[in-house]
Amino acid sequence: MTVIDNAIYVDGVRTADPMSLEQTYETLTERGGMAWIGLYRPTAEEMASVGAEFNLHELAIEDAITAHQRPKIERYDHSLFTVLLPARYLDKEEEVEFGELHVFTGKNFVITIRHAETPVVAKVRHRMEHSPELLALGPEAVLYAILDQVVDDYSPVVAGLENDIDEIEDQLFSGNPRVSERIYKLSREVIQFQRALQPLLGITALLHGGFQKFGVDIELQRSLRDVEDHVALLTGRADSFRALLQNALTVDGTLTTNRQNEASAAQNEEIKKISSWAAILFAPSFVAGIYGMNFEIMPELKWAFGYPYALVLMAIVAAVMYVIFKKKKWL
Amino acid sequence: MTVIDNAIYVDGVRTADPMSLEQTYETLTERGGMAWIGLYRPTAEEMASVGAEFNLHELAIEDAITAHQRPKIERYDHSLFTVLLPARYLDKEEEVEFGELHVFTGKNFVITIRHAETPVVAKVRHRMEHSPELLALGPEAVLYAILDQVVDDYSPVVAGLENDIDEIEDQLFSGNPRVSERIYKLSREVIQFQRALQPLLGITALLHGGFQKFGVDIELQRSLRDVEDHVALLTGRADSFRALLQNALTVDGTLTTNRQNEASAAQNEEIKKISSWAAILFAPSFVAGIYGMNFEIMPELKWAFGYPYALVLMAIVAAVMYVIFKKKKWL
Amino acid sequence: MTVIDNAIYVDGVRTADPMSLEQTYETLTERGGMAWIGLYRPTAEEMASVGAEFNLHELAIEDAITAHQRPKIERYDHSLFTVLLPARYLDKEEEVEFGELHVFTGKNFVITIRHAETPVVAKVRHRMEHSPELLALGPEAVLYAILDQVVDDYSPVVAGLENDIDEIEDQLFSGNPRVSERIYKLSREVIQFQRALQPLLGITALLHGGFQKFGVDIELQRSLRDVEDHVALLTGRADSFRALLQNALTVDGTLTTNRQNEASAAQNEEIKKISSWAAILFAPSFVAGIYGMNFEIMPELKWAFGYPYALVLMAIVAAVMYVIFKKKKWL
Amino acid sequence: MTVIDNAIYVDGVRTADPMSLEQTYETLTERGGMAWIGLYRPTAEEMASVGAEFNLHELAIEDAITAHQRPKIERYDHSLFTVLLPARYLDKEEEVEFGELHVFTGKNFVITIRHAETPVVAKVRHRMEHSPELLALGPEAVLYAILDQVVDDYSPVVAGLENDIDEIEDQLFSGNPRVSERIYKLSREVIQFQRALQPLLGITALLHGGFQKFGVDIELQRSLRDVEDHVALLTGRADSFRALLQNALTVDGTLTTNRQNEASAAQNEEIKKISSWAAILFAPSFVAGIYGMNFEIMPELKWAFGYPYALVLMAIVAAVMYVIFKKKKWL
Amino acid sequence: MTVIDNAIYVDGVRTADPMSLEQTYETLTERGGMAWIGLYRPTAEEMASVGAEFNLHELAIEDAITAHQRPKIERYDHSLFTVLLPARYLDKEEEVEFGELHVFTGKNFVITIRHAETPVVAKVRHRMEHSPELLALGPEAVLYAILDQVVDDYSPVVAGLENDIDEIEDQLFSGNPRVSERIYKLSREVIQFQRALQPLLGITALLHGGFQKFGVDIELQRSLRDVEDHVALLTGRADSFRALLQNALTVDGTLTTNRQNEASAAQNEEIKKISSWAAILFAPSFVAGIYGMNFEIMPELKWAFGYPYALVLMAIVAAVMYVIFKKKKWL
Ligand SMILES: [Mg+2]
Ligand SMILES: [Mg+2]
Ligand SMILES: [Mg+2]
Ligand SMILES: [Mg+2]
Ligand SMILES: [Mg+2]
Ligand SMILES: [Mg+2]
Ligand SMILES: [Mg+2]
Ligand SMILES: [Mg+2]
Ligand SMILES: [Mg+2]
Ligand SMILES: [Mg+2]
Ligand SMILES: [Mg+2]
Ligand SMILES: [Mg+2]
Ligand SMILES: [Mg+2]
Ligand SMILES: [Mg+2]
Ligand SMILES: [Mg+2]
Ligand SMILES: [Mg+2]
Ligand SMILES: [Mg+2]
Ligand SMILES: [Mg+2]
Ligand SMILES: [Mg+2]
Ligand SMILES: [Mg+2]
Ligand SMILES: [Mg+2]
Ligand SMILES: [Mg+2]
Ligand SMILES: [Mg+2]
Ligand SMILES: [Mg+2]
Ligand SMILES: [Mg+2]
Ligand SMILES: [Mg+2]
Ligand SMILES: [Mg+2]
Ligand SMILES: [Mg+2]
Ligand SMILES: [Mg+2]
Ligand SMILES: [Mg+2]
Ligand SMILES: [Mg+2]
Repeated sequence: MTVIDNAIYVDGVRTADPMSLEQTYETLTERGGMAWIGLYRPTAEEMASVGAEFNLHELAIEDAITAHQRPKIERYDHSLFTVLLPARYLDKEEEVEFGELHVFTGKNFVITIRHAETPVVAKVRHRMEHSPELLALGPEAVLYAILDQVVDDYSPVVAGLENDIDEIEDQLFSGNPRVSERIYKLSREVIQFQRALQPLLGITALLHGGFQKFGVDIELQRSLRDVEDHVALLTGRADSFRALLQNALTVDGTLTTNRQNEASAAQNEEIKKISSWAAILFAPSFVAGIYGMNFEIMPELKWAFGYPYALVLMAIVAAVMYVIFKKKKWL
Repeated sequence: MTVIDNAIYVDGVRTADPMSLEQTYETLTERGGMAWIGLYRPTAEEMASVGAEFNLHELAIEDAITAHQRPKIERYDHSLFTVLLPARYLDKEEEVEFGELHVFTGKNFVITIRHAETPVVAKVRHRMEHSPELLALGPEAVLYAILDQVVDDYSPVVAGLENDIDEIEDQLFSGNPRVSERIYKLSREVIQFQRALQPLLGITALLHGGFQKFGVDIELQRSLRDVEDHVALLTGRADSFRALLQNALTVDGTLTTNRQNEASAAQNEEIKKISSWAAILFAPSFVAGIYGMNFEIMPELKWAFGYPYALVLMAIVAAVMYVIFKKKKWL
Repeated sequence: MTVIDNAIYVDGVRTADPMSLEQTYETLTERGGMAWIGLYRPTAEEMASVGAEFNLHELAIEDAITAHQRPKIERYDHSLFTVLLPARYLDKEEEVEFGELHVFTGKNFVITIRHAETPVVAKVRHRMEHSPELLALGPEAVLYAILDQVVDDYSPVVAGLENDIDEIEDQLFSGNPRVSERIYKLSREVIQFQRALQPLLGITALLHGGFQKFGVDIELQRSLRDVEDHVALLTGRADSFRALLQNALTVDGTLTTNRQNEASAAQNEEIKKISSWAAILFAPSFVAGIYGMNFEIMPELKWAFGYPYALVLMAIVAAVMYVIFKKKKWL
Repeated sequence: MTVIDNAIYVDGVRTADPMSLEQTYETLTERGGMAWIGLYRPTAEEMASVGAEFNLHELAIEDAITAHQRPKIERYDHSLFTVLLPARYLDKEEEVEFGELHVFTGKNFVITIRHAETPVVAKVRHRMEHSPELLALGPEAVLYAILDQVVDDYSPVVAGLENDIDEIEDQLFSGNPRVSERIYKLSREVIQFQRALQPLLGITALLHGGFQKFGVDIELQRSLRDVEDHVALLTGRADSFRALLQNALTVDGTLTTNRQNEASAAQNEEIKKISSWAAILFAPSFVAGIYGMNFEIMPELKWAFGYPYALVLMAIVAAVMYVIFKKKKWL
Repeated sequence: MTVIDNAIYVDGVRTADPMSLEQTYETLTERGGMAWIGLYRPTAEEMASVGAEFNLHELAIEDAITAHQRPKIERYDHSLFTVLLPARYLDKEEEVEFGELHVFTGKNFVITIRHAETPVVAKVRHRMEHSPELLALGPEAVLYAILDQVVDDYSPVVAGLENDIDEIEDQLFSGNPRVSERIYKLSREVIQFQRALQPLLGITALLHGGFQKFGVDIELQRSLRDVEDHVALLTGRADSFRALLQNALTVDGTLTTNRQNEASAAQNEEIKKISSWAAILFAPSFVAGIYGMNFEIMPELKWAFGYPYALVLMAIVAAVMYVIFKKKKWL
């Protein structure tokens, strides 16, 4: 069953819970008021049924079945069709997970269609059932409330992204070489999020126009401006994330080369050290080579203390070289 | 023969299949209705013939012969001239292959001209011949249907590009050094695809204006908006591909330097190892040098176990050095 | 207590210092004039109180309690709601520290709300209490004066940023490897500052419209243009900072590689030097090896001065090699 | 002589070839029709003469003498002044060579002034003298024809640039280190070409306005749109060249680092090889060192086959080491 | 003295040279005509004096005292206030040096205020005093002439920048490692210059509007368009400088890595050479080691020519190794 929740509201109060779509249509005709039907991935048949009952436009029905739409709003003769992408931030995976929510609104009905799990609709229905005066304003009020909820739910996404960017900055300057991948992947999420945000101002602009034209409650118009203000704030932050991550990518490249320089300098120091020790070891060996020569007349060879003298000579030669290298800072 | 398909439709039904262009003109005059002539790389003579019959504008005829046009739409006195670039994705070569399709529409005719193989026209003709009510709306409906098909066919292109970008990301972070070329070349394809997409909103805007001015069926107007919506979705995704590939290029540069750092560190380890072994080998050799000296008084030389003692000494010296280097993590 | 300063002004002169908000409302009703209430992080109750008294809009009240708003201006039925972000530059930390200042203005009141420490309101109140003719112009004059002060206070921020960019340039070209982090972090501050600046022209534009519509004093209108001019100047400089720091990041990358080249060249020189000395040391050792051979007939071994001859030979061989390497510039 | 060609056309037919400017003015007054004077780097005197005769504006005359103008169009009381930059591609030098062409058009005259060699004017005059019906449309038709020719001549420039970009891509991925310079220099040419293209749409827009206002032949208006279409196509391609070359610069940097990695890996292999051979050579030398010791009791020294045994031992030690290094893939 | 030049012009002719500002005001009232007062860093008192006399606006006076303004134009009730930044190119330092010039124009006065040395005002006054017919057009003509002069003086700046970019390109491709700093610093100058240019079109647009509204001489309007044209040309070139220097920075990075590759390859060659010579030296030494062994039975030791044989053997071994390394291209 793809009908999640289905109710008739009269003057903002829930007055009926029809068992089927057909029953909904009947009850609505009898009692008047507003129907709010909540669907989850409806079949083509279900969409055909509500479409026929409420005069929904064929192209909008096609979109509602197909899904994978971008955020948009479209005005048809008897209904308004709105697509929103609610989002939440999966902090562990560092991913922005998008839902997809379609809303049809007309004179006396709201149809909400989810194409992915999202708590937005349930939250809004719950909130509005506790504010009958708001719900009594009709379908426009519901549409506004959903839009407001979706945009409010973007705040934790932005906060999560900002938090990860802070972490990235720490990693970046502590020289973590795995940060490149993290920056790249978070950039990708920010780009997707920007694509979800960008059409929203167009949507609120069209709604504004409609609200003014059809004399919708002035307070609802002001609330819409509050949403626009929120969207502008989020857009500004998302844009700055993009710029920051771009800079982070550039800095990451430079810091990587910097680490290379440091490693190279350290390596150089070690080569000097190794060479110094090679020389220190080699020098006594050269002394041994000299006294290994077979000349008949080599006075030292006859000395009583020739052997200890040679050993001491070796030690002195090595010590002198050690001091020289120490002074040249090679050791 | 460059005439691919050639038919007369009355009230949306195919009523004649003329054998030549001349026969088409006659039949159209006799029976009324709409002619739909499908050409493939027509000669200047053929274009002159249809041009004269249907009052096509000389400049549009020139374009239709020359080809290599960008997507555009132009309104002349008796006809509308539209250029579209259908595309398909060659997944193996990772290339977007573009066709080129010119469409003349007038009061009672559609002329479709292909400059490269594309199944778009055949698909649309087939679909419309099965929807006489749509075909009965006349040339505007055909033009809309072609535009819709071209744009629908862009979806698999975008999907193919997205898929390859996913593969590229995997290659990128698994350190494949050949990924630079792949990123660059895919960027080039995305740029070309963006150039094909970019003029489409101008085309639909002009069509919209015309549809409103000439009172074209309201449903056709809405369908056009559906196409616009689709184009906006595709444009957004193509733009994000461009940004992703740009970032991938930057990250690729950094990761390449990172690999350099790792290789350099590994190399450094090996130099230490080699130096250690050199020292370990050299030390016993120094012992041998000492006992190769020719001093007359060297007590060890007279010892009964002098020789084994020297060998053991060599082993000890080597072992001590081995332990030292092991402790310093050079080995 | 979150009420910081609270006064009634009649004809630009401070005439009452009410002890509580309630007293303010009463005095204002009695004497007329303008109330100016200064709050610091007000509670929901306090905001409800002033909101009820002065007919403030619920959404603006919500914003004033929540804080974390971007700079903006919103016109409601009985009040204007303005958000500004005063800033100061922490030179040691190289950070732009933002305050947050909300201003409600109406027919006969100004409410200033601070969400972070900022001296702006106190400075403006002090300045205006010394210019009764300006204060007598009413709430619009106060709003203008606050805006002017906020923008004037941005000047030292820009000066501080510019000064640090100059320092960065010096560090950059003197090869300081820590400059990357500094460039990145200063870029982040500049980006934040740009976000604070960017909405200001929209705010002054809306104020301009209102000033014209409601016939506000022409001199106030001109002063507003002076603020706009100042904002334009600051925006231009901030934009150029962004561009400069971007270039600095790129140059930093190149200079880092350059240092690598220089280090690598120096390392190469040292390897040559080490190799040269190894050869110079080895050569005499080879002479010793020759005269250590045990051939029966080796005339030199019998020479009276064979040993000194060998030592001299060693010295000559070493000297010749030294000269050769010196000539080849390896030493 | 800077007068290149000078003729009077009546009804599109060349009817006089005046010998001097003065004669041109007279003939034009006598016979009516249109004068077309072609100049090459005219002197201030010549410009003063034509300026006085045809009421050319002083500022335009100044420009025509000074040269070094960007493409533009300016409307004065009695004339229209147009500057165009014809171009050709020098394939060998990979440079876009720009001419500079000024055109004055008025009620009954066209003055074409070249500041660098360009075949455009001669081509257009030749073409129009063979289309009297077009030439009969007067100065506007000539101006259109020149604009069309200049834009048509940009096609081979774009083709040449595209061809060199293809070559650059091949060089890039075959690792040619000289490609950086080529990319940079070609970018510079593309930037210059973009600067020449960019003002053209402004020029055609102004011409369009004038053509409509002054009721110029409708076909000339359509031809102008054809030129605009051509300019849009060229602009799109030039823009994509810029993007491609930018990417090529980035990829070039990465591939250069990649080559560094490969070179470094190869170098590492060689250091291992050298070290292995050093060890293989050193080991037998150590055996020799042992049997060079002077212990009185070293049994091997007395063996009949001690010497061959030592040589065999050396060979074995070397072979064992060779096998070890071979197994460790150091050799 | 901050009054540099001070004169009264009647019908474009200099008719009085007042000794003080007060005298200027009197003479102007007596004789009519136009006053042109040239000031250099005026004090607040002097500005107050001219401000009171000519009804200058307080905010403009504040700007004129404070200086450090961006280029702008502001219209007040009785005067127009214009700020311009004349520039000259210091070729040696490769810096664009900016002056700052404020101009007040009203019905019958021009006040020019310099905040840095610039020859612009003197040049314009000299030129205009020789063109009384132009000067007779009044303050607007003077303002135009100053603007024209400032813009004309930008030409040598652009030429100087272009020249240095050419030099930079040569340095870049000849591998000069100091070019990074030069590119960066020249970019900074170009950015500053762009900031000076960018407001100019807004200034001329406002002047244009005023000239049309107040029926200023049509020729002056056209001259203004000539200035706009000049500004557009300069802007286009400055923009391309920015793009070129950006590319130069990128290429510089790549070429730097390229040099690294070449240095690394050269270093590798030297390591091979050194290793080869080490092996060549070591081989004879090994021969000496063998004949230094103390085996009782070593036939060669008894040979009459054993010693020379050993020396020849050493030479042969070394020569064979030399040939091997030569063949392997290590030497
Ligand atoms: Mg993660
Ligand atoms: Mg994702
Ligand atoms: Mg909200
Ligand atoms: Mg809310
Ligand atoms: Mg996190
Ligand atoms: Mg593939
Ligand atoms: Mg392709
Ligand atoms: Mg479609
Ligand atoms: Mg469809
Ligand atoms: Mg694929
Ligand atoms: Mg759709
Ligand atoms: Mg809010
Ligand atoms: Mg700091
Ligand atoms: Mg901060
Ligand atoms: Mg201020
Ligand atoms: Mg001020
Ligand atoms: Mg500082
Ligand atoms: Mg000011
Ligand atoms: Mg070439
Ligand atoms: Mg050139
Ligand atoms: Mg053409
Ligand atoms: Mg043509
Ligand atoms: Mg070529
Ligand atoms: Mg064409
Ligand atoms: Mg210099
Ligand atoms: Mg400077
Ligand atoms: Mg000029
Ligand atoms: Mg001039
Ligand atoms: Mg220079
Ligand atoms: Mg000019
Ligand atoms: Mg490197």
